[in-house]
Amino acid sequence: MKQDHAAHAAVRKILDQAKASGRDSLTAPEARGVCEAYGIVIPKEGVAKTAEEGAALAASIGFPVVMKIVSPQILHKTEAGGVIVGVKSADAAREAFSTITANARKYDPKADIHGVQVQQMLTGGQEVIIGAVTDPAFGKLVAFGLGGVLVEVLKDITFRLAPATNEEALSMLDGIAAAEILRGVRGAKPVDRAALSGMIERVSALVADFPEISEMDLNPVFATDKGATAADVRIVLDFKPAPARPRPQHDQVVAAMNRIMKPKAVAVIGASAENGKIGNSVMKNLINGGYQGAIYPIHPSAEEIMGKKAYKSVKDVPADIDVAVFAIPAKFVAQALKEVGEKKIAGAILIPSGFAETGNVAGQQELVEIGQKYGVRLMGPNIYGFYYTPSNLCATFCTAYDVKGKAALSSQSGGIGMAIIGFSRSAKMGVSAIVGLGNKSDIDEDDLLAFFEQDDNTQIIAQHLEDLKDGRAFAEVAKRVSKKKPVVVLKAGRTSMGARAASSHTGALAGNDKIYEDVFKQSGVIRARTLRDLLEFARGIPVLPTPKGNNVVIITGAGGSGVLLSDACVDNGLSLMSMPPDLDAAFRKFIPPFGAAGNPVDITGGEPPSTYQNTVRLGLSDPRIHALILGYWHTIITPPMVFAKLMVEVVEEMKAKGIEKPVVASLAGDVEVEQAAEYLYQHGIPAYAYSTEIPVAVLGAKYKWARGAGLIPPN
Amino acid sequence: MKQDHAAHAAVRKILDQAKASGRDSLTAPEARGVCEAYGIVIPKEGVAKTAEEGAALAASIGFPVVMKIVSPQILHKTEAGGVIVGVKSADAAREAFSTITANARKYDPKADIHGVQVQQMLTGGQEVIIGAVTDPAFGKLVAFGLGGVLVEVLKDITFRLAPATNEEALSMLDGIAAAEILRGVRGAKPVDRAALSGMIERVSALVADFPEISEMDLNPVFATDKGATAADVRIVLDFKPAPARPRPQHDQVVAAMNRIMKPKAVAVIGASAENGKIGNSVMKNLINGGYQGAIYPIHPSAEEIMGKKAYKSVKDVPADIDVAVFAIPAKFVAQALKEVGEKKIAGAILIPSGFAETGNVAGQQELVEIGQKYGVRLMGPNIYGFYYTPSNLCATFCTAYDVKGKAALSSQSGGIGMAIIGFSRSAKMGVSAIVGLGNKSDIDEDDLLAFFEQDDNTQIIAQHLEDLKDGRAFAEVAKRVSKKKPVVVLKAGRTSMGARAASSHTGALAGNDKIYEDVFKQSGVIRARTLRDLLEFARGIPVLPTPKGNNVVIITGAGGSGVLLSDACVDNGLSLMSMPPDLDAAFRKFIPPFGAAGNPVDITGGEPPSTYQNTVRLGLSDPRIHALILGYWHTIITPPMVFAKLMVEVVEEMKAKGIEKPVVASLAGDVEVEQAAEYLYQHGIPAYAYSTEIPVAVLGAKYKWARGAGLIPPN
Repeated sequence: MKQDHAAHAAVRKILDQAKASGRDSLTAPEARGVCEAYGIVIPKEGVAKTAEEGAALAASIGFPVVMKIVSPQILHKTEAGGVIVGVKSADAAREAFSTITANARKYDPKADIHGVQVQQMLTGGQEVIIGAVTDPAFGKLVAFGLGGVLVEVLKDITFRLAPATNEEALSMLDGIAAAEILRGVRGAKPVDRAALSGMIERVSALVADFPEISEMDLNPVFATDKGATAADVRIVLDFKPAPARPRPQHDQVVAAMNRIMKPKAVAVIGASAENGKIGNSVMKNLINGGYQGAIYPIHPSAEEIMGKKAYKSVKDVPADIDVAVFAIPAKFVAQALKEVGEKKIAGAILIPSGFAETGNVAGQQELVEIGQKYGVRLMGPNIYGFYYTPSNLCATFCTAYDVKGKAALSSQSGGIGMAIIGFSRSAKMGVSAIVGLGNKSDIDEDDLLAFFEQDDNTQIIAQHLEDLKDGRAFAEVAKRVSKKKPVVVLKAGRTSMGARAASSHTGALAGNDKIYEDVFKQSGVIRARTLRDLLEFARGIPVLPTPKGNNVVIITGAGGSGVLLSDACVDNGLSLMSMPPDLDAAFRKFIPPFGAAGNPVDITGGEPPSTYQNTVRLGLSDPRIHALILGYWHTIITPPMVFAKLMVEVVEEMKAKGIEKPVVASLAGDVEVEQAAEYLYQHGIPAYAYSTEIPVAVLGAKYKWARGAGLIPPN
Repeated sequence: MKQDHAAHAAVRKILDQAKASGRDSLTAPEARGVCEAYGIVIPKEGVAKTAEEGAALAASIGFPVVMKIVSPQILHKTEAGGVIVGVKSADAAREAFSTITANARKYDPKADIHGVQVQQMLTGGQEVIIGAVTDPAFGKLVAFGLGGVLVEVLKDITFRLAPATNEEALSMLDGIAAAEILRGVRGAKPVDRAALSGMIERVSALVADFPEISEMDLNPVFATDKGATAADVRIVLDFKPAPARPRPQHDQVVAAMNRIMKPKAVAVIGASAENGKIGNSVMKNLINGGYQGAIYPIHPSAEEIMGKKAYKSVKDVPADIDVAVFAIPAKFVAQALKEVGEKKIAGAILIPSGFAETGNVAGQQELVEIGQKYGVRLMGPNIYGFYYTPSNLCATFCTAYDVKGKAALSSQSGGIGMAIIGFSRSAKMGVSAIVGLGNKSDIDEDDLLAFFEQDDNTQIIAQHLEDLKDGRAFAEVAKRVSKKKPVVVLKAGRTSMGARAASSHTGALAGNDKIYEDVFKQSGVIRARTLRDLLEFARGIPVLPTPKGNNVVIITGAGGSGVLLSDACVDNGLSLMSMPPDLDAAFRKFIPPFGAAGNPVDITGGEPPSTYQNTVRLGLSDPRIHALILGYWHTIITPPMVFAKLMVEVVEEMKAKGIEKPVVASLAGDVEVEQAAEYLYQHGIPAYAYSTEIPVAVLGAKYKWARGAGLIPPN
């Protein structure tokens, strides 16, 4: 919503005035002026000098009105008898004018009486709150909630990045738990959604246009079926906002990241031949990991390390270098980084700790400045390094990792990085990259998103993070990237206790979790609630084809699994298809008469393999069904591997006919089902033994992505 | 809260009157009478014949009052000018009396005017709702919520079994999401908790005393800082309540269940030598499972089956039999069951399907009647059978199971039963029993609870269920048993979609999930949200010693794990101890200067085994700490198995000194951590690779139990 020049100029003038007088908030008339300029509806009002003027003004505003004495000397208006509410007619207004002025004169005979303020009296409607805040990570955010106890006690409030589009503003009306109230309950009329969303949009435009508006509150706003009026306005200013985090251009980011992830040559600063040293582990991992580019060990004295010629400085290397991996103590890093800069190396992988995480903020700032001066991108410090499997690149002191695939993962914390490696190997999750971001002095999640966006080796991006150094940049990039590739985020420190721990360990200011929640949603990011979810989503989402619609059908041999799978569908926002009668009849043909059709399709436990085969084939064939959830029950008649092989067969048979739908499976049975689950997973059907919830959560995550990317309509 | 004889008689009289006149609800005066008898405060009121009387009455009630014409002919009182609200003084009351009677005479000169009703006018305070419902599973329940949109839109309501104690009634005030409102927000005074909980208690006593009151609503109740008054009362009656499910005496239950679980002799009706037959699988499992009692195959013609002499009927067996396992088609079950009854066998294990679950309700009812007639307890029908490992008893057609331990599990569904078996075997979870309950025609969850309560081989009871046939019996038994042994329940069909599936598959009426939630809490039952949680809780809870207090400390090598573990603590209702300065200093001695003390204790990733050892030893030694959560980070310096063995060593060392505290661990690292996790688990430390949430959830479940059982104070 672009405001015209005049509106902009009017607000600018008011803000300049406040700045000139050294204030950090606006007076009520100034705030009114700002609202009027941006079309934010406020109660009509005016000042009458005479009883006649008062009556005319009240009539033009519309009854009822509130009338109040205007006198610089009278501060306690009510005490002075200077306020009359609920004035309902012109005559009453005339009388109120006289009463108020008479009372005022009696109260303070010396007072200057400027007149009587006549103000529209707001009645009825739903009280809501519209506001704006400046978040350290995300910048300007617009907020919306219901007035009174709902916001204060139940914290039922929703946020969007400002400026918000009208569509985003509208989505906020549905973004609160008590959304139903706005649609009218107990005989109340629904609120005027256009007026309300328009006001949200205007507030968001205002704070985006004027960064010095640090906080704004319209509280309460009276929303009726015919409009919305902000009864009270509070605007707080900050003329010295924190400087923005420097951010290279997109093309520069991508160019640098490509050199870092696909380097022709890597230097190891602090390479060592001695077992147990970090510089030794890095060398081993580079060599044993199968990296085919040049490797240059950098060492103050050695001639050669692990069969590679060593140099005293990167500057001595007689060829271009793309990446320098640092394996030296913190105190030597700055000097070596300068040399890396002079050598025009694209990326410095700063494994060493001993910077901001230990309180050495200045030391880290020095590195940042060197990096900026020379145009070197910094990964870390305080990281395990990174893996990029398409380059066979293990630039890390951890174990080498080689299960290639399409999932790119990153973690802010080293421990979580090791968990990613262990899980990936154990679950045979193919990975394109695992990246440690640590203190994120420079390279952060949005740099990785920009690289993986254009990286054909990556199909899904999964990130563990504790904070976002530049939440707005992340949101902007994520919004674009998530349209193409799923982005999954585990935001640690999401509870207040967790946030405290995050803060004690990284010095990161963990923001209000609801802000992260809403911004992730606004950006199409899938939020993982737990570490295991992050890992399972990264593993499962790329395996599943994208659904073409919302109709999910459960086919189960165990009625009990069907119930739990249905529970999980609700938990994960999936919609169980209402079975059309013809389809119901078609399923019934394949199942015993006492099996339950409908959805779940309960084929019952005693059935031979053909029953699974027939019903699943039907589920895949019918175009009204968009995804299948299978519940297998281990029996002698249909043993686990028989089931698994058959399901893969049916899915492949349909794939050959051009039909691809997401299928997940839950396996209940004795330990043989573990092998069956693994076989299914390896053949494109995410399957889990002894769990009804995980397969459905994985399907749910795929759906969240498809909906966020606009590939299927909202549920 | 026992009401006196007069109160009881007064209500009885009103109800009898309503019954006599064939009504299914009470009139307003009748409802007032019931409230007055039970001390439920309602607005004061009376009828005045004269203006003087009106003034006196109003004064005695207290101002303001509402005054209304009382005349059988005037139905539309307001239209007749027969209502005046907000009468504030005796004079005004006098005047109002005159005005009202004059208006009424003018409106209808022929009307009989009985007088003017003077009623206390309720103003201010918080509107709340108190009610009572009759649930098909739980019977009488009392309900409490906030008035208006909070209950209607946000469904913020809480239930307790009626009658509720005053303590339970008080807990309801904290049992709603918006509980803070009752404590006074935005300058409002807190409500009178004694008055409100007293009213809840009285309502619960009333519906418990008079089963024919099927529904009751006090809506709204005005709760102020000085009392609570029910402005409107609605009472619905049902003089033909559903018959209660028959329920044997506790001693009978225990005696029969002991014969069933620890039988001296088992008959297999439908025993078979033919591979693939259910009656063959049962025979094999009994024999191969190592059961040492007598086994009697029952078969119409065979002389001998699997080396055991066969009989035509149980009646032919020349010895006592405790259990008969049925492996014959549905149509033959009734006749065989009669013979089982005549033989005085304690339990019939009804594996066959083809009863209520397929619509054959009459067939099932016939079995129930035979069982009742002969005093045979029925397990099933439509089940896999059961396992009781202390008797080496596998009375099932599934695979034999032999990992002995202390967890007793049951499932309503066969598929879930198989998942229990698979998980138990895979996770080496020691089990005392696995029981299939299927259609629960007779034996249900509370029978199992009663048996396991007194079974020294069982330390924890974990039950999967879709409904409760007699929720009240379950709650009563669970409340008692959970004080001694943890009871974990996975209630399937908890979401509306899941409930629909449950209903289509078992014909069970799945109640409002919030009722289950609240009754479980009231009964000390730990609720598992997912199948995996049920299994992990069953596995982990018996391993952990009971904590002696609420102070949890996280000790972690990975700061990132610390944050996620803290998140999980909040999710699971655990309280991270605020670290006292001396203890903080004591931890700091062992960790590097840049490690973060406080809680989590972040020992940092590069530390040798001794740092884990010292800090964990300190955590176990200090009596202010009650439980430890360990976050391990795989490094070369402290490899996984070194960590695991050391932790077990420290825990055993402290145990030898008489110090036992629950310790759980989250392991982040490469695949070697899986072996370490298993080692830890086998030595009393529930440990999980690649997960920060599961170990904390297991500890959280142990805490829930300890709090519910009153072993430690609420958090």
